[in-house]
Amino acid sequence: MNNEKTAPQLNIDPKLPPESTNILIVGAGLIGGSYAQGLSQLGYRVRAINRSQESIDFGLQQGFFAEGACQPRPDWLAETNFLIMGLYPLAMLDWLRANQQHLRPGALITDVSGVKSNIVDVAQGFLRPDLEFCASHPMAGKESSGIYNADWRIFADANFIITPTERNTPQGIAAVQRLAELLRFKTIRQLDIHAHDHMIGFLSQLTHAIAVSLMTCNDDEGLKDFTGDSFRDLTRIARINDVMWSELFLLNREILIDNIDCFSAELHRLRQLLQANDRAGLQQMFRKSSARRAEFDAGHKLSK
Amino acid sequence: MNNEKTAPQLNIDPKLPPESTNILIVGAGLIGGSYAQGLSQLGYRVRAINRSQESIDFGLQQGFFAEGACQPRPDWLAETNFLIMGLYPLAMLDWLRANQQHLRPGALITDVSGVKSNIVDVAQGFLRPDLEFCASHPMAGKESSGIYNADWRIFADANFIITPTERNTPQGIAAVQRLAELLRFKTIRQLDIHAHDHMIGFLSQLTHAIAVSLMTCNDDEGLKDFTGDSFRDLTRIARINDVMWSELFLLNREILIDNIDCFSAELHRLRQLLQANDRAGLQQMFRKSSARRAEFDAGHKLSK
Repeated sequence: MNNEKTAPQLNIDPKLPPESTNILIVGAGLIGGSYAQGLSQLGYRVRAINRSQESIDFGLQQGFFAEGACQPRPDWLAETNFLIMGLYPLAMLDWLRANQQHLRPGALITDVSGVKSNIVDVAQGFLRPDLEFCASHPMAGKESSGIYNADWRIFADANFIITPTERNTPQGIAAVQRLAELLRFKTIRQLDIHAHDHMIGFLSQLTHAIAVSLMTCNDDEGLKDFTGDSFRDLTRIARINDVMWSELFLLNREILIDNIDCFSAELHRLRQLLQANDRAGLQQMFRKSSARRAEFDAGHKLSK
Repeated sequence: MNNEKTAPQLNIDPKLPPESTNILIVGAGLIGGSYAQGLSQLGYRVRAINRSQESIDFGLQQGFFAEGACQPRPDWLAETNFLIMGLYPLAMLDWLRANQQHLRPGALITDVSGVKSNIVDVAQGFLRPDLEFCASHPMAGKESSGIYNADWRIFADANFIITPTERNTPQGIAAVQRLAELLRFKTIRQLDIHAHDHMIGFLSQLTHAIAVSLMTCNDDEGLKDFTGDSFRDLTRIARINDVMWSELFLLNREILIDNIDCFSAELHRLRQLLQANDRAGLQQMFRKSSARRAEFDAGHKLSK
């Protein structure tokens, strides 16, 4: 890639004073707002752009960022070393297309998108060659959204995934790694885009698809009186942001469809064991399930 | 039914001293042991029969029951007013078949089975006409089993379902109701057998079938490093007692198969929306799911 790019100070020398890095966060919701809060507390100069004036006012009042605006500010873009895109994936692509011409040469860009296929390659395809987009995914969230719920302590128990491509530089990747370290994520790992989206397609998207289907498949109102822990556990995540999740599902739809098919085949196998009155087969399946879940519990205890 | 039966004192006059009721618990595991503990603390005379001497010794030492044995004792059966069957459903039927001849005329029998089809009608069919079997289901449990984990405080947050049939007397039903009140269940309700097994087939068995299938459908060991709350929530109940659950699934298999089919059709609908790139359809499904889950949360708060 371009060697003339201005090195983002966030990365190159951690001993440099943080004030020398200009950070701009576009989309200051739950995650963008929490990034802003953490980075400001660490002494970085943080600006934010967000559609809603109310969110900007709240962030300023809380000291999450030093300056904020509702519209792109070409002068700010020209001063930004590190641009963090907190928007939904498709809105991010639109924003970058519309505003990249103002960005400082050598600026590093990262994002917070939950899906990388159809996003990272697209962005890297249209961005100016003197800009670097190194994608990442903070696997953190809350059931409530918006800057009003921002709290960077949610990162302490969360995974952070960097999804570099061959178009990224070691410096760019190291800067995103440093961002995650500064924000105190529990674990920081690198995955290629395909592996990331497969993992997310199974662990996050399939589980949400199941929870939603379980919640909507039965209209019997009387069941509400009897729901116990099992049903509540399986449907907690059925309260879902319809705009964001439909976008994430569709961006990753081929992988998600594969995962739905794989899960459905296994549930159908259980159904066949029932149909055949196959007690031994059911017991074997339950023992496999129990043993695997026990491993997860053991791993969870170790990682705490 | 038979009018000559001896009224179980547990029911007829709550002001009668509890010592006048002889309770026998057969199968003193987690639930039977917790019943024994609670009833003993309330002043009832409780005996227990359990295959394992170790469990009997533990229960005696803890004061859960006054006397215990590893084999049926005809003399105890002849003195029992209220027999509580804590065995798995099929073992319960075998035990009742083998031992009913020793039971005191008019004795009341209840159980703790999670499924009632193929159990209650069978038992009521072969039992002597001077015995009454009034089935019930304490919807309580723990992830660990056995009398060593007995603790009757688990009932305080649990539903208790009585499933009377036309062969039950008002006195028999009232006695089982009183048992649940004494053990301080949160709610006590009556359902017919079909409604009970439909409810259990959906809320408990389908959720376990889903959790097990999700846990066993993917062999990728690498996923363990990334599991977050969603996956852990959906698979917590995938640790499952293989002997008990295969028995419960098979006893209720037609209803469970219907529930699996209903859920699978809904998940397939979601898959079709993905396939068709139908963003509006997905959003609509997510909004329905969110609204329903919100109602459950509201209901849960009210009931606390």
